[in-house]
Amino acid sequence: MQHVGQEVTLSGWVQNVNDLGFMMFLNLRDRYGITQLSFNEEKTPKDLFEKARSLGREYVIKAEGTVIERASKNPKLPTGDIEILVKKLDILNTSKVPPFTIDDDTDGGDDLRMKYRYLDIRRSPVQQSLIFRSNVAIETRKYLAGEGFIEVETPNLIKSTPEGARDFVVPSRMNPGQFYALPQSPQTFKQLLMVAGMDKYFQIVRCFRDEDLRADRQPEFTQIDCEMAFVTREDILNTFEGLTKHLFKTVCGIELSDFPRMEYDEAMRRYGSDKPDTRFGMEFCELNDLAKGKGFGVFDNAEMVVGICAEGQAGGYSNKDLKKLTEWMQRPQVGAKGLVWVKVNADGTFKSTVGKFFSEEDLKAWADKMNAKPGDLLLILSGETDKTRKQLNELRLEMARRMELMKPGDFKPMWIVNFPLLEWDEDSGRFHAMHHPFTSPLPEDEEKMLGGDHETMKRLKANAYDLVINGVEIGGGSIRIHDRMLQEKNFKLLGFTEEEAEAQFGFLLGAFDYGAPPHGGIAFGFDRLCAVMRGQTSIRDFIAFPKNNMGRDMMIDAPSRIDEGQLEELGLEVKVGKE
Amino acid sequence: MQHVGQEVTLSGWVQNVNDLGFMMFLNLRDRYGITQLSFNEEKTPKDLFEKARSLGREYVIKAEGTVIERASKNPKLPTGDIEILVKKLDILNTSKVPPFTIDDDTDGGDDLRMKYRYLDIRRSPVQQSLIFRSNVAIETRKYLAGEGFIEVETPNLIKSTPEGARDFVVPSRMNPGQFYALPQSPQTFKQLLMVAGMDKYFQIVRCFRDEDLRADRQPEFTQIDCEMAFVTREDILNTFEGLTKHLFKTVCGIELSDFPRMEYDEAMRRYGSDKPDTRFGMEFCELNDLAKGKGFGVFDNAEMVVGICAEGQAGGYSNKDLKKLTEWMQRPQVGAKGLVWVKVNADGTFKSTVGKFFSEEDLKAWADKMNAKPGDLLLILSGETDKTRKQLNELRLEMARRMELMKPGDFKPMWIVNFPLLEWDEDSGRFHAMHHPFTSPLPEDEEKMLGGDHETMKRLKANAYDLVINGVEIGGGSIRIHDRMLQEKNFKLLGFTEEEAEAQFGFLLGAFDYGAPPHGGIAFGFDRLCAVMRGQTSIRDFIAFPKNNMGRDMMIDAPSRIDEGQLEELGLEVKVGKE
Repeated sequence: MQHVGQEVTLSGWVQNVNDLGFMMFLNLRDRYGITQLSFNEEKTPKDLFEKARSLGREYVIKAEGTVIERASKNPKLPTGDIEILVKKLDILNTSKVPPFTIDDDTDGGDDLRMKYRYLDIRRSPVQQSLIFRSNVAIETRKYLAGEGFIEVETPNLIKSTPEGARDFVVPSRMNPGQFYALPQSPQTFKQLLMVAGMDKYFQIVRCFRDEDLRADRQPEFTQIDCEMAFVTREDILNTFEGLTKHLFKTVCGIELSDFPRMEYDEAMRRYGSDKPDTRFGMEFCELNDLAKGKGFGVFDNAEMVVGICAEGQAGGYSNKDLKKLTEWMQRPQVGAKGLVWVKVNADGTFKSTVGKFFSEEDLKAWADKMNAKPGDLLLILSGETDKTRKQLNELRLEMARRMELMKPGDFKPMWIVNFPLLEWDEDSGRFHAMHHPFTSPLPEDEEKMLGGDHETMKRLKANAYDLVINGVEIGGGSIRIHDRMLQEKNFKLLGFTEEEAEAQFGFLLGAFDYGAPPHGGIAFGFDRLCAVMRGQTSIRDFIAFPKNNMGRDMMIDAPSRIDEGQLEELGLEVKVGKE
Repeated sequence: MQHVGQEVTLSGWVQNVNDLGFMMFLNLRDRYGITQLSFNEEKTPKDLFEKARSLGREYVIKAEGTVIERASKNPKLPTGDIEILVKKLDILNTSKVPPFTIDDDTDGGDDLRMKYRYLDIRRSPVQQSLIFRSNVAIETRKYLAGEGFIEVETPNLIKSTPEGARDFVVPSRMNPGQFYALPQSPQTFKQLLMVAGMDKYFQIVRCFRDEDLRADRQPEFTQIDCEMAFVTREDILNTFEGLTKHLFKTVCGIELSDFPRMEYDEAMRRYGSDKPDTRFGMEFCELNDLAKGKGFGVFDNAEMVVGICAEGQAGGYSNKDLKKLTEWMQRPQVGAKGLVWVKVNADGTFKSTVGKFFSEEDLKAWADKMNAKPGDLLLILSGETDKTRKQLNELRLEMARRMELMKPGDFKPMWIVNFPLLEWDEDSGRFHAMHHPFTSPLPEDEEKMLGGDHETMKRLKANAYDLVINGVEIGGGSIRIHDRMLQEKNFKLLGFTEEEAEAQFGFLLGAFDYGAPPHGGIAFGFDRLCAVMRGQTSIRDFIAFPKNNMGRDMMIDAPSRIDEGQLEELGLEVKVGKE
């Protein structure tokens, strides 16, 4: 209201027009919001009125006029108390009728939105997500620079290594037959920067992975990437806990408490997941001691019997509902063989699928161990430990969704630490690095790693850590190996021959010969972090121009065929997919 | 000195050791500088002394001790007044003897420095260049965010377009036979962001160009990339002049005056270059009116006779020197046919190669027009206008180098404006875009562009501008076309068929149908900007891991061959360079 009487000039897009005949109102939209323009038969010259009448949706205009108080105020708009009585109007560009409306809730499907992304971004939710992302980036840099970090850009044209996910490769015209790779992360370069004495490095950096895209993965994505020298795990966790708190505080106005830390083994036992959502309880309760040896073969033959207690859900689930829930668990995506349920009735009795195998006392002992109250529903799985935990994790999350336990605005960050160093892969008969091949074992495990047997190797713990918020892995890192002998041993365990290790990572092993300091680091998925902070499940709207599940940019129609001449110059021939 | 008496712990690298037998001094280097550690037979335990004696150059150590005043202070070091009397010493890692010394002036050649870049970066000049770059990036973002700009990340996997330099391409495994391209710039995406209503966009962004690399070009480089909607040229120039002043002030402590602006035509006339170095004068003086028609055929047949006056240089150049200078001008890199010189003697007489064709009065008229004083040396070229100007530009710069007129710490920024829109290429018989195909003509030239004849097209001026500092093009930009019809006309002039324009830029033309606002932008070469601000001629040390002139990363040895399996998956066959 303080602007009333001022002469203003506004430029933007025509959101909509309300023509009352003798008066006309037009909503003008720009990056900063919506402003109502008014035209009035009494006060507006006839030719200006006619010009205004010629405007269509999404026309680009420049309007000059006087700020006046609105007769009928709109409390929904920040500018809803005023309007502009227009004196001069320029049409800067016309517009076809857009293929979907430029509204918060649009009628455009995903494909149409992506094809016309430049119209989709005009919609406030997308625009605000991009602005939010920009703010998170600014605050990240502000915080890390304040902590003495130097942003160093690492190259995007690097060397292909078969370890990890698939690389995108880039043929080199000047070196025919040879290829660069796009980085899956700046891992080796940031370690070399530590060897180079840069001490505290960070970068908000694009990374690339040629994966078969699951929902909500992108072939190119952005990381907050960091590395520090002469530090312990504590230094790194404290720095990045500080960063996360700073971001939530400055960008969202939310104060986070200190982040709890949990060992990987404990997280798997209590939640069946290394990224537990701790906004709600419903923790796992192992029932081996109570459920086995009572003649129920399924349990007796299982390595693990484990359940959760869904509070107050007994009444809400009919037999039919429970059959449906069992089928949901049996889908290939989850893969459970079955689901045992126990209802704790209001009178303290029990109803269960396995009632004929277990007495009321047996079931009461379960309920007691699971802290169940009358009205609660116990859901129990059994089988091989790792698989069963994974399945129960799916069930726990599904029940939480149904029970609406994931509250918007509730943020529960935590650190998961001490992951296994190596995973044994039966198929290939070799170990895989759980984090990556540069991860150090815990200090107390170093000697075991150099001298231990196969079973010892399986039990080695990595000095690695993940930040998890609301069940989403925001990022992770580790203390790295900085000793050539230990790194060579690790490559060997991972199935590299000496020649392969030298050919692929010789530059890093070489660098370790020249005074490599102890170092470690972390990387956050930036797209994911932004989505979680805004309470969104998809990263799509935090990326200005995302690709679809086939890795295709629908707007520019990429990838596409290239000239024969270009292929010729690169010394390449396309063998497949020719037209 | 205020730290004397404190207990401290320092970690870093052994720079060098000075063993006096009963005492030992060791310089410890970290990111923050050099600190002297001392060991003293009287005060240091014997085993600690022996441990210290075992250290070699570039060993990584952690030392605890007491800060004491130095007996012999070193005024060259910020920490030169103190030393650390060591009480505890940990050797964190050993080191081989490095292949070159870690000194400001190193004995490593370029190849060795690049192969061991992680050691090269330990050298203070390189480390400080990278820290400088990080600071420039921070201040750039601070300034632009303060001006309301939003940083939006644009994709790196985009579509190949034959226009401009060569693209690097990336084969798509999921879309066999198809390729992404790496962006030469985010040009079309930033324009689409303007159509999308993002209003003020910026990004510090990696770009890629597959060019035959001249000295000091890199296949990947970084830009400060910007675009604004609803603006005129003035808004853009003022914003980025403000940015440049801010960077010089905050990072270098230098206050720049307002940047002069010069038309392209004037710059060519006065300096023979669209990026004149104005730290010194030595401007061009055209002599057609005075030098032609006197019977000297070379001049009479020349389109242009033009010279410069090298102040006070007459005495310093013998006939032999002038012959050498002439030969320098005749090298293929410059390509002058010859060089005419006139010495203004101390007594006001003249000595010249063309003395027999021109009288003393003639030569005096030249000298007067060129503001020459006794002792000055006039250097004159003739021939076709454009070529001659280019050659004289080379001579002007060479003379300035010899005369040491380019003073370190002197910065002369300027805007060059109103470039030609199109260049006619005789060979291909078509126009090329001088800036790029999205550049708008000056407003007054728009109509001519839509309706003019061939000769008119040649004279069209672009609404384009470059920032030049000390003869280096820092960046440039333009007001863009935002009208579909004008853009289609431009594509046509540039030799695109309608089908080609649609196939390559259909998404942009399509976007112009839906309310594209007037917009324009600019991009600065970030690597170059950093180098110029630090008074360096090479960008190499502002890039952590640069590539050599063959586009090769000597450290990681990329590009390299990839697995047959990888090629198979991509549906590609390598036809050349096979082993």
